[in-house]
Amino acid sequence: MADWTIKLGVDELNGLMSREFGDSSIVKGPVQDVAPGRVHVVGKFHPSMLRPGDLVSGPTLMSVADTAAYTLILAHVGPELMAVTTSLTINFLRGAKAGDIHADALLLSLGRRLAVCDVRLWTEGPDRLAAQATVTYARAASAAA
Amino acid sequence: MADWTIKLGVDELNGLMSREFGDSSIVKGPVQDVAPGRVHVVGKFHPSMLRPGDLVSGPTLMSVADTAAYTLILAHVGPELMAVTTSLTINFLRGAKAGDIHADALLLSLGRRLAVCDVRLWTEGPDRLAAQATVTYARAASAAA
Amino acid sequence: MADWTIKLGVDELNGLMSREFGDSSIVKGPVQDVAPGRVHVVGKFHPSMLRPGDLVSGPTLMSVADTAAYTLILAHVGPELMAVTTSLTINFLRGAKAGDIHADALLLSLGRRLAVCDVRLWTEGPDRLAAQATVTYARAASAAA
Amino acid sequence: MADWTIKLGVDELNGLMSREFGDSSIVKGPVQDVAPGRVHVVGKFHPSMLRPGDLVSGPTLMSVADTAAYTLILAHVGPELMAVTTSLTINFLRGAKAGDIHADALLLSLGRRLAVCDVRLWTEGPDRLAAQATVTYARAASAAA
Repeated sequence: MADWTIKLGVDELNGLMSREFGDSSIVKGPVQDVAPGRVHVVGKFHPSMLRPGDLVSGPTLMSVADTAAYTLILAHVGPELMAVTTSLTINFLRGAKAGDIHADALLLSLGRRLAVCDVRLWTEGPDRLAAQATVTYARAASAAA
Repeated sequence: MADWTIKLGVDELNGLMSREFGDSSIVKGPVQDVAPGRVHVVGKFHPSMLRPGDLVSGPTLMSVADTAAYTLILAHVGPELMAVTTSLTINFLRGAKAGDIHADALLLSLGRRLAVCDVRLWTEGPDRLAAQATVTYARAASAAA
Repeated sequence: MADWTIKLGVDELNGLMSREFGDSSIVKGPVQDVAPGRVHVVGKFHPSMLRPGDLVSGPTLMSVADTAAYTLILAHVGPELMAVTTSLTINFLRGAKAGDIHADALLLSLGRRLAVCDVRLWTEGPDRLAAQATVTYARAASAAA
Repeated sequence: MADWTIKLGVDELNGLMSREFGDSSIVKGPVQDVAPGRVHVVGKFHPSMLRPGDLVSGPTLMSVADTAAYTLILAHVGPELMAVTTSLTINFLRGAKAGDIHADALLLSLGRRLAVCDVRLWTEGPDRLAAQATVTYARAASAAA
């Protein structure tokens, strides 16, 4: 895509997420890989994520999508934790069978004010997507809202 | 809106949700009110829902939106638990202060195959919306997928 | 909703739209009514808007939704024509029969940087919605992008 | 992605689009390339597409996104012209400078009832995306709605 530069690596991102979100997040030590314009995040499976039919729940997938997009932005702007999600659209493509939830997040644009990410989620494999999400973040200026 | 008919009331909906989702849902006994084309759902606040800045997390709001839309569909089609979320779009309008999460869900359309719901979420009051979501459900035919 | 204040009325909005967009818009003299937090816009029907099945095309509905949201923002912020659409989500609820396209646009939030609008579209009547759209605008700061 | 099979090629798609939409579409003879799971569509630039600031209008981009998704579905299901758009979400990533509008559409899922497409749009080049859209289609059963 464009020529993005990484400002935070895997260990820095996981440390930051752990300090900020601690036990409140379903996604622990989530970031597996970082590259310009991309991150790969994994949410560890837990049986409480299942819904009738033994499929991973929609809110679980949304939560992993949100984490993936958030760490993607962080990786490219640095520890500016004031970025806030402004919108998220998710399309559920097929039932997500029980298993770790993988998310590939791709930076579509990173402006001074808004950033847009594309996230693809799966449990079975990247060629069997469970969902696709588009997440928009507003970068909070130092003082402004 | 159109002339919708209610097939399940508050107690039936909460009973159904409890049997189906048990403890896996963050939203317990959620349905407060049902009327043709509308439900009002409340997710009980818990401090683990907070994010830095003491705001209710995005995934918590998305989860309540999903529950509200799901119970809205159930109320109008009966205990046909095969309806699956096909997409959800949420716009975060302002930070959601700590408190119970209220959701007003409105049926926009209910076809033989798809149903679309508008959901408005708040913690402070209905005149200070925290988020608006649009949720689409596919109604699974008895045999078809 | 909140306590919005109108800065431009019907005639000012139609004048502004005409000067800015002239003949390039499918929606002429579109604004019919303005109130705090709301506008009502009408796109005049033309047979070229029809698709097979004699239904108004999706792009026509999207264009009217965009115009409705844009004039809604203008009405509340004044002639600050630097506002740009950042996202639009539209759900098609039923086929739109031939006829003028009505749009009711409601302001969900108006921050210093982003504004979010809910738009409902119909040709037959407000109780038979053809589509619902959510449109997000970024307000361009005097210097920033 | 998955193992999609092409049922209609470039010439068949352009013939079908021409017969069905004739002069009502802004996108003429649009399909440039078809491959399993993908199409590349081009909307010819016309000055009437420009908005203040000499940028291609949002509705123009939405229209090309819709055409790209529609021809992508057609290419994979054959001349089943009953598929209808059920939702479209578009994120505008940067201003689209004057020029032909290119769209790369990718099939994310193709079920018996729903199909979901990812569309990326640009005028300057694929590494400078102007917009990303997600489009959902319902496949009309022979008799059902």
